Amino acid sequence: MTENATALRARVAPIFQQAPFVGTIGLQLVNIGPGWCETVLALAPMHLQHMGVVHAGVIATLADHTAGGAAQTVCAPGELAMTAEFKINLLRPGRGERLTCRAQVLKRGRTLHVVEAEVFGQKDGAPHLIAKFNATMAVVRAAAAPGAPVAAA
Amino acid sequence: MTENATALRARVAPIFQQAPFVGTIGLQLVNIGPGWCETVLALAPMHLQHMGVVHAGVIATLADHTAGGAAQTVCAPGELAMTAEFKINLLRPGRGERLTCRAQVLKRGRTLHVVEAEVFGQKDGAPHLIAKFNATMAVVRAAAAPGAPVAAA
Amino acid sequence: MTENATALRARVAPIFQQAPFVGTIGLQLVNIGPGWCETVLALAPMHLQHMGVVHAGVIATLADHTAGGAAQTVCAPGELAMTAEFKINLLRPGRGERLTCRAQVLKRGRTLHVVEAEVFGQKDGAPHLIAKFNATMAVVRAAAAPGAPVAAA
Amino acid sequence: MTENATALRARVAPIFQQAPFVGTIGLQLVNIGPGWCETVLALAPMHLQHMGVVHAGVIATLADHTAGGAAQTVCAPGELAMTAEFKINLLRPGRGERLTCRAQVLKRGRTLHVVEAEVFGQKDGAPHLIAKFNATMAVVRAAAAPGAPVAAA
Repeated sequence: MTENATALRARVAPIFQQAPFVGTIGLQLVNIGPGWCETVLALAPMHLQHMGVVHAGVIATLADHTAGGAAQTVCAPGELAMTAEFKINLLRPGRGERLTCRAQVLKRGRTLHVVEAEVFGQKDGAPHLIAKFNATMAVVRAAAAPGAPVAAA
Repeated sequence: MTENATALRARVAPIFQQAPFVGTIGLQLVNIGPGWCETVLALAPMHLQHMGVVHAGVIATLADHTAGGAAQTVCAPGELAMTAEFKINLLRPGRGERLTCRAQVLKRGRTLHVVEAEVFGQKDGAPHLIAKFNATMAVVRAAAAPGAPVAAA
Repeated sequence: MTENATALRARVAPIFQQAPFVGTIGLQLVNIGPGWCETVLALAPMHLQHMGVVHAGVIATLADHTAGGAAQTVCAPGELAMTAEFKINLLRPGRGERLTCRAQVLKRGRTLHVVEAEVFGQKDGAPHLIAKFNATMAVVRAAAAPGAPVAAA
Repeated sequence: MTENATALRARVAPIFQQAPFVGTIGLQLVNIGPGWCETVLALAPMHLQHMGVVHAGVIATLADHTAGGAAQTVCAPGELAMTAEFKINLLRPGRGERLTCRAQVLKRGRTLHVVEAEVFGQKDGAPHLIAKFNATMAVVRAAAAPGAPVAAA
């Protein structure tokens, strides 16, 4: 993996910039490197469920998209990572001003990447693990991707 | 389960009405019965990811909340169902005018309910299975729920 | 899928006959068709865990191998289905004289098959759902399989 | 957690000694501490599947039982940990003279413990991650356990 940090970011940033739902919920790319990705989500009332804590769907979206970013870093040019399946364990209620997420590729394959992610809320000002996530990402050729192609970075 | 349909709906509808993220994405309760729940989501550009298909996070939110509705129907008064974990398999890209979801309780327990859900898109005008979901829901007493309590229905 | 039942069985039976661990636990192929597979396991003391019910590992093995059989029925000649990941929900304790399992392909893909399985024990003489299983199976070319090749049927 | 190592082992060892299926496959407890457990399994032909590598069911049994051991260390006296669900990702074929497993409690709860486990084979003499496992364990009172009670240690 000899690609430099700027080139890597240029290649992966479009999956954040060109995904409308990422904007809908306000998810932002923080940092990225070979096999990993970090993001942040500033919490607002719109993210909550009926008990006043963050909706599981928000936490799952955050983890899934960050894991997709990490998987994208280990894809070859012209390949896109798509989620085939994921599991998430919701360990503690999500609260605080923001959620952060770090995803890491556990196994890079030819047709599948396995990625893990951890989601953190805040408690007494310190990060606090609220969810653990694990996904299988399928590698598809951009030309065979299901919708409009991502612009070549 | 002798509760009538109107009473059941009155008891479960608040988890849709009082969850802001449900409004954010536009998820609507369609129908409900003992052990099951059906919902619909009208698709808009805001739901898509970078390849032009529905974001996995939208599909997961739809399935999770519908499964929560189904689990709530088998909770006793004063109990709330909270997602402990879920897995989702994304089988086909989500497209069309709307997504629909049906969730069904597979096992009702004292402290855990296991719920399955299927999510459908549309293809050539017909419903088309795009995701299969399976969750463990923990039963919590409303008084011990993590945030503001749901108003008694 | 025009392959007849005899040919299908001849093609899939080796994954039962040539898997030593299948013999170790006593799992038997019962019936098979396009996209599905049924098996049985006669219970003995060796299958139990420390509380006197069937070990989760036995139930998982039964479900996984039966799902592998179902996946194999939708593989092309020269392809083998290998488990990439699975999830299992253990719904009730496993008891009785035997366990039975039925697996069904939910989605057939080019490089991945998604398969579900249900495992039944017995209660008061009737089948009783004890576990629900769901797997992603990767399609590998027999020539690229990790160990000794399965004899061509 | 002020229980000493000897007392902890005396309390957890019975779930290995009294589980017949653990003996069937040859799984052995190696080491244990508060929130974690380590085991080993000497590989023999009986553990293989039809491609000549370790059966997924063996790997799942190893991970599940080791995770159960880790969960048991955080149970109160008179409580037993039972697997409610697990997911396992099979990352690489299992080969070598033995498999080792380490499980760690990720979240200790009142009625549920979440546990992760990693399974290692060997490649060129070094440990080699072959599977990642994640389970929800339900805490049951020994008096309410489904079968014969475990002898008080």
